[in-house]
Amino acid sequence: MKMLKIPEPTVVRLSLYSRFLNQASSKGIDIISSDEIGAAVGIPSAQVRKDLSYFGEFGIRGVGYRVRELCSQVDKLLCVNQTWPVIIIGAGHLGLAMSGYRGLQDRGFDVIALFDANPAKQGELPNGLSVLPMERLAETVREKDIRIGIITVPADAAQQVAEALIAAGITAIINFAPTVLNVPPEVKVRNIDLTVNLEVLSFNLGMRG
Amino acid sequence: MKMLKIPEPTVVRLSLYSRFLNQASSKGIDIISSDEIGAAVGIPSAQVRKDLSYFGEFGIRGVGYRVRELCSQVDKLLCVNQTWPVIIIGAGHLGLAMSGYRGLQDRGFDVIALFDANPAKQGELPNGLSVLPMERLAETVREKDIRIGIITVPADAAQQVAEALIAAGITAIINFAPTVLNVPPEVKVRNIDLTVNLEVLSFNLGMRG
Repeated sequence: MKMLKIPEPTVVRLSLYSRFLNQASSKGIDIISSDEIGAAVGIPSAQVRKDLSYFGEFGIRGVGYRVRELCSQVDKLLCVNQTWPVIIIGAGHLGLAMSGYRGLQDRGFDVIALFDANPAKQGELPNGLSVLPMERLAETVREKDIRIGIITVPADAAQQVAEALIAAGITAIINFAPTVLNVPPEVKVRNIDLTVNLEVLSFNLGMRG
Repeated sequence: MKMLKIPEPTVVRLSLYSRFLNQASSKGIDIISSDEIGAAVGIPSAQVRKDLSYFGEFGIRGVGYRVRELCSQVDKLLCVNQTWPVIIIGAGHLGLAMSGYRGLQDRGFDVIALFDANPAKQGELPNGLSVLPMERLAETVREKDIRIGIITVPADAAQQVAEALIAAGITAIINFAPTVLNVPPEVKVRNIDLTVNLEVLSFNLGMRG
């Protein structure tokens, strides 16, 4: 497999393909075409073929791709063929929703614990996970060798939480708080911002007049 | 203002600029430079200047932009200078988190009601909003002239919910379910997918070895 630098939008699409390919594989499907993949994930088949050209050897010209082999290589590239321990900071509704989200475990992301500065939110959750005080953050990250943190605190607390995560050794952050985090270049942040997504919709509605 | 077709990544950035410009404006700042905007939202200043070239008349060469006028024009373009009624389908933790999210109202998105098929989840929430049965969806959308729906149901229910929304007259959807929705071309969907975002992180962690 060519290990070129893969652009981030391609990585996003590979993640979508992977989820579909895993479903197809578990249904016992052996060969799948770029048309079928594209239709399932809502991406033009020409784009699918371009993205999967990184995995050329699993294609059979004019027929399709060998599902199991392609799937396994895409998952290997995405590093979801291993388990990633994850922590969540903020045990409000959003943090609890994320901690109970089955899709994470299915893809190898294992929520180890939640953290919250509010003592009233600390303790054991019905799903068996613990909400720990922030003071336990550094030791947990170190002991469990955690690299990924999910921030679900309000905007005005997010930067401070990010700094605590980074000080503890976290290098990859999902940020749900509607604010831009200042982090060192070696820390990777993905922002998930509901307001921005809604504004793309209102922009589109406005364009239609 | 030139009304060219603006690419979606630019719209996303305009939404980020807008939030920062509104903050600056409310602090009484009159003039702001592209360097300052870029530093605040984590985007190179050359990109900021390119994006804001749509709004050229608010720039003062070598100095910056007139905050209040720029802000008002960006908000007008994004159509956030008006109130958009919004409904949420799915009253689990995620739906409740979204319904209580202050950032929405601040930007003109007004959650009118939640809907859930489970009678145990129906009723009034502590924040005063109602969780209504799905049977009330169509009348609510019609009466309140709602165009935007947020889907927070599990993946296996999402397509059916999307179809109910579209049948009721919704044309813009935020989809949190980890599945691709099949919708007619006139319906705009923005997917917010935690797993995909996590896999971009695991990909990056893997690349570092």
